[in-house]
Amino acid sequence: MRKLLLSNDDGVHAPGLRALHDALSAYGRLRVVAPDRDKSGASNSLTLTRPLALTALDNGFYSVDGTPADCVYLGVNGVWDEKPDLVISGINHGGNLGDDVLYSGTVAAAMEGRNLGMAAIAVSLCGERYFETAGRVAATLVGAAESLSLPPRSLLNVNVPDVPWEDIQGVRVTRMGYRGPAAQPLRVQDPRGRERYWIAAVGDNADDGADTDFAAIEAGYVSITPLQTDLTRHTALDDVRNWLDALSNS
Amino acid sequence: MRKLLLSNDDGVHAPGLRALHDALSAYGRLRVVAPDRDKSGASNSLTLTRPLALTALDNGFYSVDGTPADCVYLGVNGVWDEKPDLVISGINHGGNLGDDVLYSGTVAAAMEGRNLGMAAIAVSLCGERYFETAGRVAATLVGAAESLSLPPRSLLNVNVPDVPWEDIQGVRVTRMGYRGPAAQPLRVQDPRGRERYWIAAVGDNADDGADTDFAAIEAGYVSITPLQTDLTRHTALDDVRNWLDALSNS
Amino acid sequence: MRKLLLSNDDGVHAPGLRALHDALSAYGRLRVVAPDRDKSGASNSLTLTRPLALTALDNGFYSVDGTPADCVYLGVNGVWDEKPDLVISGINHGGNLGDDVLYSGTVAAAMEGRNLGMAAIAVSLCGERYFETAGRVAATLVGAAESLSLPPRSLLNVNVPDVPWEDIQGVRVTRMGYRGPAAQPLRVQDPRGRERYWIAAVGDNADDGADTDFAAIEAGYVSITPLQTDLTRHTALDDVRNWLDALSNS
Amino acid sequence: MRKLLLSNDDGVHAPGLRALHDALSAYGRLRVVAPDRDKSGASNSLTLTRPLALTALDNGFYSVDGTPADCVYLGVNGVWDEKPDLVISGINHGGNLGDDVLYSGTVAAAMEGRNLGMAAIAVSLCGERYFETAGRVAATLVGAAESLSLPPRSLLNVNVPDVPWEDIQGVRVTRMGYRGPAAQPLRVQDPRGRERYWIAAVGDNADDGADTDFAAIEAGYVSITPLQTDLTRHTALDDVRNWLDALSNS
Repeated sequence: MRKLLLSNDDGVHAPGLRALHDALSAYGRLRVVAPDRDKSGASNSLTLTRPLALTALDNGFYSVDGTPADCVYLGVNGVWDEKPDLVISGINHGGNLGDDVLYSGTVAAAMEGRNLGMAAIAVSLCGERYFETAGRVAATLVGAAESLSLPPRSLLNVNVPDVPWEDIQGVRVTRMGYRGPAAQPLRVQDPRGRERYWIAAVGDNADDGADTDFAAIEAGYVSITPLQTDLTRHTALDDVRNWLDALSNS
Repeated sequence: MRKLLLSNDDGVHAPGLRALHDALSAYGRLRVVAPDRDKSGASNSLTLTRPLALTALDNGFYSVDGTPADCVYLGVNGVWDEKPDLVISGINHGGNLGDDVLYSGTVAAAMEGRNLGMAAIAVSLCGERYFETAGRVAATLVGAAESLSLPPRSLLNVNVPDVPWEDIQGVRVTRMGYRGPAAQPLRVQDPRGRERYWIAAVGDNADDGADTDFAAIEAGYVSITPLQTDLTRHTALDDVRNWLDALSNS
Repeated sequence: MRKLLLSNDDGVHAPGLRALHDALSAYGRLRVVAPDRDKSGASNSLTLTRPLALTALDNGFYSVDGTPADCVYLGVNGVWDEKPDLVISGINHGGNLGDDVLYSGTVAAAMEGRNLGMAAIAVSLCGERYFETAGRVAATLVGAAESLSLPPRSLLNVNVPDVPWEDIQGVRVTRMGYRGPAAQPLRVQDPRGRERYWIAAVGDNADDGADTDFAAIEAGYVSITPLQTDLTRHTALDDVRNWLDALSNS
Repeated sequence: MRKLLLSNDDGVHAPGLRALHDALSAYGRLRVVAPDRDKSGASNSLTLTRPLALTALDNGFYSVDGTPADCVYLGVNGVWDEKPDLVISGINHGGNLGDDVLYSGTVAAAMEGRNLGMAAIAVSLCGERYFETAGRVAATLVGAAESLSLPPRSLLNVNVPDVPWEDIQGVRVTRMGYRGPAAQPLRVQDPRGRERYWIAAVGDNADDGADTDFAAIEAGYVSITPLQTDLTRHTALDDVRNWLDALSNS
């Protein structure tokens, strides 16, 4: 039986994680390791400055006082004898579209699984209502995962419209869109009168062309984006070389 | 005069940040906004669960109780009237090679600058000794930055060998290499006898071919890798489409 | 029906809190507000630098991303219409004897209740086994609390031997004993080779005379110590006055 | 030459700490160990869940990623060969009057020194302007400290009016007054629309009789309150015994 490692970034008590667990319980042996607190926005961050505590909860889930990537690292390394076959992260409360992907702890948990050598899927619900819809999508993909062969260091980023299952229009394979710059910070005064700055909500869509994740969700489709962990801008290697040559000749 | 925003992930008191400041002081008006604590490994994480404090220090640097990406966001948005022209992050204590890039707060600070619309350069010293060498590299690149035209959403990741300036062999434009999976966590017992897990050092090189950042540093060259923030694995879009078609036909 | 506010410092998922809840469920309407993480050693600390999140869990308990004193403050102020009549904190995993009291988050939670105008009891089990024994002690005291009239700004610190109920030798009203200085810190090397310092276990008993909490527990008795929140050393007021007079005459 | 350990709770970069350092530099060999961040309200809390980093700053001060009590513990234990003779904490930005004392990290730093066997003085300025006045008060007391013999486990809590030195009316030895309950929390909405609760400013004075610290400051006097670390309400021991007797006879 396959061994599935589940994590998320909304925290070990989030309804989305519970929904993912329930949707996948027939698809393998589940191990759930998730942050003890809301870690939305944690990206790939790893906790390097202190050791981590791994705590078993009453419901069989494990809680870690760290980030989503910490959770996957500990869920894979050293604490259990067997490594998982597949890492599934989610169901995120809210979509991870466009460059949300760069900040998302949900995507990071999947990416960490991928870096540790496992297949990996991140699942997000573009809202907080129909977790069951996202659960069915996750179950379908996990059920078929063995027949998908991706290039090394790839993972799937899945976003699901927040609608009942029967209202899903289909599935689209998409590229990442882009958002514009984030809004100005929210300024708040603390009770002692000092000004503080709260990072604002994400920016508006700047690139939501027809082949993007934004457009798929907007049209009511499940969006599946294959992601890579190679950040090299290969097409710019020559530009940089030419620039350096000009520099050294000047 | 150009406006340069400097940040890092080793914290506002790190010698590498001071060295970067000193190396660039002739190249523009400098604004330094950096984390109050060591935030190595912070990746692109943003602090969303609480507001941030921005504190002016005696030396004119600004300290933020948050992550490198928080610092750049606050350094660009709302607190000052003018936006910076260029974001430079570093000098990191230690290299950011291969998939270190995914976890690095130094690279994330530059990436945040890029996401907010600025040109951005991350500079790391592959050691903790010859910050002056890395400072000279940074100054050279910043001095010539206006003549480099990169595609949108690109940035430069620069790694510098930890040797005296005269021992630098040259500059190579490289692609990201890859490390293998990280080692097992360090198990420590706290003073009350409870087991805790400390995330281990990075894994060994798994891909350090001749055109990688690893190989450049190994050979004594400065490594410059153009990075992108589009994580789409474009070459896998069709594979995923075919897989889904087979799924829906079965 | 009385309204009881329960908290602790071991965190909202600690078995000791659950045991306290179960033991007291017949004695009033219970509201449980406790830290989301282990906050042993938190003392009276309040979180002033950021706002707090209050999260309802599946089991009806409330979790706060803060300290025990934060929890009691939020459990009393503003979120519910009615104030509690009594604050009970615990059951702590481990005793709070002698000057442990100064550092204990369990005692602090009770003290915060007392500062906000409620009667307050802190309950600790000197071990981690017989929570049921401590639960019965708590229930007995809570059942009789209305007939106890303490001076203003007082609370009860209760410690219970970690033995079956039938092995309890009785109850003693005690004074705080004292421990000697804490041991040296545990030095640990992080996985990157840097030295870190972990605060050691508490010191040995320095004053455990027959009328102290230490002696009661040692002899198998429940220890009840009335505490105050006036820290003035009244007997030293004249000594300090004389010292100042000598100073100003010299 | 005496060895003085200085700490505070406003953080290692606070002007009040610098002012204390400058005022005391002629009175002994100074060692400064203070939190890397603002830790106001930290009370006696100790960091037990993770090891601490101790970092030397450029100005010779040491920074700890922990609480004031952590700082004093590390400043006394194990890192240096010699123990300090006297611990002075401050100059706090703002007064520590009445039951502020229970929450104050400044007082806690002094108390930790006392618990570790040293004489200890906490100094607070009731404002943020005339640190020099408080520095002169601190220097006077430190200069005379050897001739003061306090009972064991006592310390001095000193509050200074925020006025020029020549406007100080004199010195009064006082008892702790009391504040009323704290105000309701400040409710803030985060940028994502979720409600959060920020602990409010302290309550109004409830007991500021002529012999209290409140009254001394109000009248323009320096207030010196001897504090103890024995929290036993000795005068209530019999009341509790009688209550328990009645309980067991009923």
